[in-house]
Amino acid sequence: MTEAGRRSRAWRFLGIRAVTAGDGCAVVEMPTTDDMTNHQGTVHGGFISLLADSAMGRAMASVLPPGTRQFSFDLKLSFVNFVRPGERLRATGRVLHRGRRTGVAECRVEGEDARLVATATASFSVYLPADE
Amino acid sequence: MTEAGRRSRAWRFLGIRAVTAGDGCAVVEMPTTDDMTNHQGTVHGGFISLLADSAMGRAMASVLPPGTRQFSFDLKLSFVNFVRPGERLRATGRVLHRGRRTGVAECRVEGEDARLVATATASFSVYLPADE
Amino acid sequence: MTEAGRRSRAWRFLGIRAVTAGDGCAVVEMPTTDDMTNHQGTVHGGFISLLADSAMGRAMASVLPPGTRQFSFDLKLSFVNFVRPGERLRATGRVLHRGRRTGVAECRVEGEDARLVATATASFSVYLPADE
Amino acid sequence: MTEAGRRSRAWRFLGIRAVTAGDGCAVVEMPTTDDMTNHQGTVHGGFISLLADSAMGRAMASVLPPGTRQFSFDLKLSFVNFVRPGERLRATGRVLHRGRRTGVAECRVEGEDARLVATATASFSVYLPADE
Repeated sequence: MTEAGRRSRAWRFLGIRAVTAGDGCAVVEMPTTDDMTNHQGTVHGGFISLLADSAMGRAMASVLPPGTRQFSFDLKLSFVNFVRPGERLRATGRVLHRGRRTGVAECRVEGEDARLVATATASFSVYLPADE
Repeated sequence: MTEAGRRSRAWRFLGIRAVTAGDGCAVVEMPTTDDMTNHQGTVHGGFISLLADSAMGRAMASVLPPGTRQFSFDLKLSFVNFVRPGERLRATGRVLHRGRRTGVAECRVEGEDARLVATATASFSVYLPADE
Repeated sequence: MTEAGRRSRAWRFLGIRAVTAGDGCAVVEMPTTDDMTNHQGTVHGGFISLLADSAMGRAMASVLPPGTRQFSFDLKLSFVNFVRPGERLRATGRVLHRGRRTGVAECRVEGEDARLVATATASFSVYLPADE
Repeated sequence: MTEAGRRSRAWRFLGIRAVTAGDGCAVVEMPTTDDMTNHQGTVHGGFISLLADSAMGRAMASVLPPGTRQFSFDLKLSFVNFVRPGERLRATGRVLHRGRRTGVAECRVEGEDARLVATATASFSVYLPADE
């Protein structure tokens, strides 16, 4: 299946794309727009949260066998710098742990100038094909 | 100012509305659509995260004097149930603590049948007008 | 089995006791001492974290069948007020969700004057007897 | 002041020591004992939480001017492997962001065989001498 074909509705809606994915690491990008801004005119943290969750999910998928279902059920973020609309964000997700039923990943979100925008951690529940 | 006039670009983009807000509590709603779905066909956790962040921010704003700037810089979520697109989500944010420079709020996100979808906590940085 | 007999080594070491536990809720207390203080002379957040984790674990155990193993693998805390050594802390843990393999609980930690000291959320991995 | 002289009461109580600290990074160690165990006979997550908080606090202190007060008010942990009592834990804290009033740090806790035990993130409130 092509990379484009694997994009979810949410990814297409927000213009999210995977740049690379494999071996427990995924780089995912999202353009930001005026539609994503809060009252201060900066990008709403919720979109950054969504991007981070996406990068970690893609990283986790890269270490699981086909047919596995997985979803994050815990998400923790620290926002460290503002984002102006128009800036392209890049999130790098990495798997820290992959157990029989759960996994843990972390993520850094950076702006175009490579400044740190946010860090995140997520826990995943994993359902291997044999479990179902 | 009217409620409609106070909606940010992000809120209008996603159809988010405040139902009530005041005294440290805010109820905020968001319709969910097919555009918000992940590969499993359920609503991407990032949108739920965004809604929770929004409800807590609105709750926090209700206890701060006019002219105060505030933003979440820490966001923690636990997802407990899936959401099917089309369902309207309701997030109730409550202020737990409001200090001189920081605040803490919590949130419950529920589906139409009032089942618990997610819980969240956020820390806010607060800049009172006198600080600037 | 008596309540005293069920206290773990860690609980006895720190003087932690369950006041009540049942139906997804547990109230757990811990005295604080000078041995628990940081450089500012207040109780180190780590002990508050330990108490919160304990209360949530006990609450979770109250809704699981005998023989179930469970452990927290995600812990999120917000500290909102300092604690002076000598003060007795009370943590109230509540189960928010109990699934087939995971659970979510929340906790409030209060001081002697019932002021809020910290809030916490934890995710648990649950191994029912039939799983092993 | 000697390193030993700077240990807080909590650190001495639990045998915690800083191995290195400087330039936004700190390595802190803690021996584990039977007194730290839960009902499963493994080290209670609360002690791991305390160690991680300590390492991040020490890392943060290394980038702040003398006389600055700082304390964590948000702590997020993911536990990925059990710890048997008797094992020495090593926590490496790193500053990710240091702003005017807040800071963010992350931490990895490892066992003697360098396996990952837990990861953590903390937000700090910073009071520079000029603020008080």
